[in-house]
Amino acid sequence: MKTRIYNARILTMENEKEIFQGEIWIDDERISYVGKNIDILNQHFDKEIDAEGNLLMPSFKNAHTHSAMTFGRNYSDTLKGGEWLTNVIFPMEAKMTQEHVYELSKIAFLEYIVNGITACFDMYYEPQSMSRLSEEYGFRTVLCGAINNFRETPETIENAFLHYNQLHKYISYRLGIHAEYTTSLELLEKMAEMVHKYKQPFYTHVSETEQEVKDCIDRYGKTPTQLFDSLGLFDFGGGAFHGVHLTDSDISIYKKRGLSIITNPGSNLKLASGVARISEFTENGINVGIGTDGPASNNGLDMFKEMYLVSTLQKLINKDASACPAKQVVRMATRGSAIAMGLIDCDILAVGKYADMIMIDLKKPNMQPINILENALVYSANPTNILMTMIGGDIKYYKGEIYINEDIEDLYGRAEEIVKKLA
Amino acid sequence: MKTRIYNARILTMENEKEIFQGEIWIDDERISYVGKNIDILNQHFDKEIDAEGNLLMPSFKNAHTHSAMTFGRNYSDTLKGGEWLTNVIFPMEAKMTQEHVYELSKIAFLEYIVNGITACFDMYYEPQSMSRLSEEYGFRTVLCGAINNFRETPETIENAFLHYNQLHKYISYRLGIHAEYTTSLELLEKMAEMVHKYKQPFYTHVSETEQEVKDCIDRYGKTPTQLFDSLGLFDFGGGAFHGVHLTDSDISIYKKRGLSIITNPGSNLKLASGVARISEFTENGINVGIGTDGPASNNGLDMFKEMYLVSTLQKLINKDASACPAKQVVRMATRGSAIAMGLIDCDILAVGKYADMIMIDLKKPNMQPINILENALVYSANPTNILMTMIGGDIKYYKGEIYINEDIEDLYGRAEEIVKKLA
Repeated sequence: MKTRIYNARILTMENEKEIFQGEIWIDDERISYVGKNIDILNQHFDKEIDAEGNLLMPSFKNAHTHSAMTFGRNYSDTLKGGEWLTNVIFPMEAKMTQEHVYELSKIAFLEYIVNGITACFDMYYEPQSMSRLSEEYGFRTVLCGAINNFRETPETIENAFLHYNQLHKYISYRLGIHAEYTTSLELLEKMAEMVHKYKQPFYTHVSETEQEVKDCIDRYGKTPTQLFDSLGLFDFGGGAFHGVHLTDSDISIYKKRGLSIITNPGSNLKLASGVARISEFTENGINVGIGTDGPASNNGLDMFKEMYLVSTLQKLINKDASACPAKQVVRMATRGSAIAMGLIDCDILAVGKYADMIMIDLKKPNMQPINILENALVYSANPTNILMTMIGGDIKYYKGEIYINEDIEDLYGRAEEIVKKLA
Repeated sequence: MKTRIYNARILTMENEKEIFQGEIWIDDERISYVGKNIDILNQHFDKEIDAEGNLLMPSFKNAHTHSAMTFGRNYSDTLKGGEWLTNVIFPMEAKMTQEHVYELSKIAFLEYIVNGITACFDMYYEPQSMSRLSEEYGFRTVLCGAINNFRETPETIENAFLHYNQLHKYISYRLGIHAEYTTSLELLEKMAEMVHKYKQPFYTHVSETEQEVKDCIDRYGKTPTQLFDSLGLFDFGGGAFHGVHLTDSDISIYKKRGLSIITNPGSNLKLASGVARISEFTENGINVGIGTDGPASNNGLDMFKEMYLVSTLQKLINKDASACPAKQVVRMATRGSAIAMGLIDCDILAVGKYADMIMIDLKKPNMQPINILENALVYSANPTNILMTMIGGDIKYYKGEIYINEDIEDLYGRAEEIVKKLA
């Protein structure tokens, strides 16, 4: 299957390359040509798509989420952060089955696809459900271990790591724990052994709230980042989710170890956690990815909203309208997230890479008149501008139609029934 | 023309009325029935629309904008706030003609319509262009005087006030000035005379930046709000745009005078101005409306984004995830804005009111599963959820189609040419 998309503006995200007019060819799953002028007389294409001047760019990668948590979306948003988690979410989660995780995650995956997101870094339980869904939908999922004192064991994590990294092309598995405040020192030490045994990067929630940092210092005399680093958990890379309340010393650890920080500004606002110091991360050369966090704490899975927040919240806290420019933020949502997730084969539009890309509709009024396109992506765009979503050469969404084998209205009914059961 | 929309969820915004299942009838421009069960056997309808369980609610009203400023959207967003205004925007504005204002505002009006916004409170120049466009598009515009030391005179404002308040049903005109920092005391005193002569409410930019407040105190020993109030400008009501840096004393003036505050969180973030104290406004019973500000300083005209920001920024600054609940914010974007703009005939869904309403698509994945709908509107919804926009009984947008007599691609071309001329 050979596809040609022509008459496009193209943002490859390869280094500092400017947007240009051109075309992209896809041979089966991968990009075979990206460029301006080429002799197409001797080429045969199975499919040709006129982009009509719209923008092709690498798809968004959601570098931190809990997809199955659609059940808790808009379910209870009038409580304080702690009460909400303890009194509403945890009791519902305790009743969830594999089938529930599978069905509830479908809604999130559909939302990702219509919003131009083609991969997620998902921290949840029941990896078999997520793996099944990823394969069925043809959607890339990087599973993240979520061991803690209440769920999972080092053995389940090790087995999952060995099993899911060689199961199918849409799925991979990264070692991780839920968070310092839910995980004993004994478990952390066992995870450090595993990290060293397999020479693997390590991921976890870090310094999401002020209280979390304070409690960790009380327990260990160290911040969460300092603790993880002292245990050797970051010896082979990895990264932190949230990182809202990182100290200067923490930031120097991320820099020194070449780690990623995955920022979740929508969730951090909504749960009143704070604003991460993104400008200082980028000034220190730290790779930054962007995540939506789960649908129960955001409550949308919309990378445009996150990009707007990443940039404008830095302007706010730095009291500088020029802080955190759009080009930086577009990189975070695409290449930055892909790097954080280990998805190095679908990070940019270049020959040999997977064709994981989106077409942005520039003909909606919100993108007009066309001025600087990276600015438009961060400050003006919204999900109405997703014209096409492609994963590994497969069109999953185009001009309002979802190309996934699912009876969507029926799925909504099933999800509603599940929420009733969990309540 | 009699229209029936049935099988809907309905949020009337009338007092504390809960969402219910029912139908709405429209006789020409106005609502003739809102309810649950009625005998329709003896009724004739010219048009019947099945809402398929989706949500009908009052449309959004954009209570502060400068529509014509689409020319500056994404044109230059890497400069500091002051440089951007002085070096980029002002020189471009100096070259603008009536025709430019007319064409450039069209893009904003189209964006409003697809985003469920049916009225705007527009502070700009060339009212004849705005009036012409409002009438042609059938879109409600409340013009706001923008006198300052450089443009307009008390005479032009008075003439506009008398002329545009009786021209056609889509347009009205409110007395106002640009801001304290651009307007001499002499002009302010003349405006106060006019306010008293016609017993009219008064509107202006107020305390958008810290510097503005500081400079005003240096000049007059008063904050902008105290100054305006001491001159009698607020004796017949009105309101403030932005109100980011209001003091406790200022807030007591808004409360005492029954004024509105129109908040613009997207612009305030993007220009690094700060976060308004919305929770304190509402605790004091002050009416709050929401505006997008102009497309050059936001850069989108999306009320869902603004609602998300209004609510979540209060959670952030109050360090309380329960602050500024969704129901309050939905009211601000609809009824609160309408009250601030003097649009008391299209604020809620009730018999006798203009049929200015929107249908929200609940069948997109981002709204599923359906839990608390007001939360979903604020935390999950985006412009893909606008299924229908109706102004005075006329459908302007439905299922992706814009029903406005305009060659939109051609308009984009004309706007591009204008931007080149202004540059």
